[in-house]
Amino acid sequence: MSDLDRVLAAVDADLDAAIARLFDFLRIPSISTDRAYAAECRRAGQWLVDDLAGLGLTATLNDTPGHPVVTARSEGGAGKRVLFYGHYDVQPVDPLNLWDNPPFEPTLIEGPNGAKRIVARGSSDDKGQVMTFVEACRAYLKVTGALPVDVTFLVEGEEESGSGNLPPFLAANKEGLKADIALVCDTSMWDRQTPAITISLRGLMHDEIVITCANRDLHSGYYGGAAANPLHVLSKIIASVHGADGHIAIPGFYDGVTEPPDAVKAQWASLGLTPESFLGPIGLTTPIGEAGRSLVEMTTSRPTFEVNGMWGGYIGEGGKTVIPSIATAKITCRLVAGQDPIHVRDAVRAFIRAQLPPDAKVEFLSGDGSPAVAVSHDNPNLARAAAALEGEWGTPAVTIGGGGSIPIVGHFKKTLDQDTLLIGFALDDDRIHSPNEKYDLTSFHKGIRSWVRVLAALAD
Amino acid sequence: MSDLDRVLAAVDADLDAAIARLFDFLRIPSISTDRAYAAECRRAGQWLVDDLAGLGLTATLNDTPGHPVVTARSEGGAGKRVLFYGHYDVQPVDPLNLWDNPPFEPTLIEGPNGAKRIVARGSSDDKGQVMTFVEACRAYLKVTGALPVDVTFLVEGEEESGSGNLPPFLAANKEGLKADIALVCDTSMWDRQTPAITISLRGLMHDEIVITCANRDLHSGYYGGAAANPLHVLSKIIASVHGADGHIAIPGFYDGVTEPPDAVKAQWASLGLTPESFLGPIGLTTPIGEAGRSLVEMTTSRPTFEVNGMWGGYIGEGGKTVIPSIATAKITCRLVAGQDPIHVRDAVRAFIRAQLPPDAKVEFLSGDGSPAVAVSHDNPNLARAAAALEGEWGTPAVTIGGGGSIPIVGHFKKTLDQDTLLIGFALDDDRIHSPNEKYDLTSFHKGIRSWVRVLAALAD
Repeated sequence: MSDLDRVLAAVDADLDAAIARLFDFLRIPSISTDRAYAAECRRAGQWLVDDLAGLGLTATLNDTPGHPVVTARSEGGAGKRVLFYGHYDVQPVDPLNLWDNPPFEPTLIEGPNGAKRIVARGSSDDKGQVMTFVEACRAYLKVTGALPVDVTFLVEGEEESGSGNLPPFLAANKEGLKADIALVCDTSMWDRQTPAITISLRGLMHDEIVITCANRDLHSGYYGGAAANPLHVLSKIIASVHGADGHIAIPGFYDGVTEPPDAVKAQWASLGLTPESFLGPIGLTTPIGEAGRSLVEMTTSRPTFEVNGMWGGYIGEGGKTVIPSIATAKITCRLVAGQDPIHVRDAVRAFIRAQLPPDAKVEFLSGDGSPAVAVSHDNPNLARAAAALEGEWGTPAVTIGGGGSIPIVGHFKKTLDQDTLLIGFALDDDRIHSPNEKYDLTSFHKGIRSWVRVLAALAD
Repeated sequence: MSDLDRVLAAVDADLDAAIARLFDFLRIPSISTDRAYAAECRRAGQWLVDDLAGLGLTATLNDTPGHPVVTARSEGGAGKRVLFYGHYDVQPVDPLNLWDNPPFEPTLIEGPNGAKRIVARGSSDDKGQVMTFVEACRAYLKVTGALPVDVTFLVEGEEESGSGNLPPFLAANKEGLKADIALVCDTSMWDRQTPAITISLRGLMHDEIVITCANRDLHSGYYGGAAANPLHVLSKIIASVHGADGHIAIPGFYDGVTEPPDAVKAQWASLGLTPESFLGPIGLTTPIGEAGRSLVEMTTSRPTFEVNGMWGGYIGEGGKTVIPSIATAKITCRLVAGQDPIHVRDAVRAFIRAQLPPDAKVEFLSGDGSPAVAVSHDNPNLARAAAALEGEWGTPAVTIGGGGSIPIVGHFKKTLDQDTLLIGFALDDDRIHSPNEKYDLTSFHKGIRSWVRVLAALAD
């Protein structure tokens, strides 16, 4: 029997005890957004420090201006090191009356689909996910006395309240946190059978466009028909951004954008994401992205131009016959790997300036951003982790991008110069942030086994 | 010496006394928007009633839920009757410290341009203008014992506060107010030398357009690139309304619009209204109306489509990466003679519906309006009044349209079925509604003489 098989067997044998440990962790109401729970947050952090110290790791509860950060290190001298990130804080529980059981009294019940589930606030987001990794380490250490790769834990207590103290903590502890790759366990499976690795997150460029025409609001009777209206000007500009084929018409906008490997695109196409399944729940039927692109591409590997807010003139009750002086739009562009936020910003601005009619002036009030973060499809750690997950689930792992940004991943890249693989075992029906949050027992059990396999694979 | 010459001579001889009477009227602080001045408003109305009764007219101070309405009738049996409209209330005077003299202590001074001017709140808007007509009647009655046409006075005290009680007063006194033509003295000369008659006012159609896409606001990272954005949809619609030539592209929008007679258009072209003179003061340089149209046409004889207000998504401080669910625009169309507001509304709505992409729904929340009011260029009273004004000023009177609406003119048309000529002697530099409001002595003196001539001409 190989070391790996023995460790996996130990995971199976220890499952009840692992559940009991998670329940202890879940009983601590570590709600980070409510100052009344500050002591409970600290207690949750200390619980985790104690548990990790019990494994023989050097574990520390690090004070910050907010809730403390848990760090722990193994020092096996394995040569390779991974940084594991998660969070011990949880969302508030209101409305309490919608919970079938008290949110901090975890229960193991059978769900309507016949699958056993752990129900409690934090069961999925993120204590249950954090403990999959902790239990994997525990099993390895128990069976083999060592970890196949060295591990640094970074588990914060403010993820649900903005992670405000984490970037300075990273900056102040760069050296101690440096690793070969970061692993984040705070995401979902693709579906119940299919594991997923998120390897890219779109970046963001934000700007605010202010168009001014006349030097004051005008009476639309006296000047109407002769005087320029900045809402008309701004509408024409916004209308010109997207062609009928959904392509963004701004020269230079796509500079640097590359295509994912054909194999990856083929995998995305095979996922069967449909307008019905993706857009149906939000009341829509028709993707508006570039013609010929799949929904996965539109939302993860292609950049966007979005007006998030727009206003001008009279927007109160009733009417006012005014030609406004000023019209404003707040825009954001989701960026993909290869795009430079400032280059995109300047392309957008040049495109707008080139379209201004004689009497319209433009000001830009914001104009900053952060690039996309992405692990190369060629990264050997990605292939190792994907193979490990397939070994556990029997289905190839999907390699996807995230449409939005997860700031911590950007900070790992920027501050620690470190790539991240996001691997999680949550499911779409976990009701995170809602009453009756749950984590499937399968997610927990096979999640632990998955990490055992990933840790082994990364050592290669 | 003709009757007309004798009356004009009497006007000249009586000018100092006329100025003294106007000063008495101006000394009454009849600010209608401030309830503290309610008694002063009543006193101003009563002053006018007394003055008109002194001329032998049947004069009445009519109570309303607000400030009283002055009515007076001559009963000479001349056969023809005109309804004269003006207002005795004035604007507030703040900021008081910007007045060179107290606003209700009228002075006759020489202006910076060497012309004598009467300075006081209400000197131009509208007590001075009202008294030009009263003094013309006084001179006629004094010299000839009768008026060439019968006159009904309607002088309200709430014009500066919305005229809220006037429409019901008109409706309740239809029969007593009926005349052959209405004369309104509350407008300006074209310039210092050129008298003007306003014979049309644009109508208005207003609507509110609400575009909805998704059933809730969306995260622009997760859905961005795939989900429809109602601000993009609305911008495309607004952008499609005006062609590059300024023409409104909505099918049916111009139905019923006619061209003014060539002579009128030639007169407008000769007025020398330039982008510099008209748009310069508001910081603009370039008329945006239909190619080939003059500024006068753009602002008076051609209809418009204007977005008065538009909003959607996040419009607060900072940013929010949202794809909004809803976008809204408040629009108005200025209408010209021949256009039906409901027909225009339906044309606009059909144009918008025809452009909706699959996932956009539209609701219209308002959608009502009032037609333009216009006296035919063939109306014989117009020709008579124009000839009379030319007789006084030595320059042909300009026949123009007003770009906006003056509600009283619509009410005269709708309630009394009566056409209106707007003739006034104010000048653009009269500073109405501002500190140091003035009325040129020439406006007052030649205004009286003008009305003498118009009254004589209308009798023909």
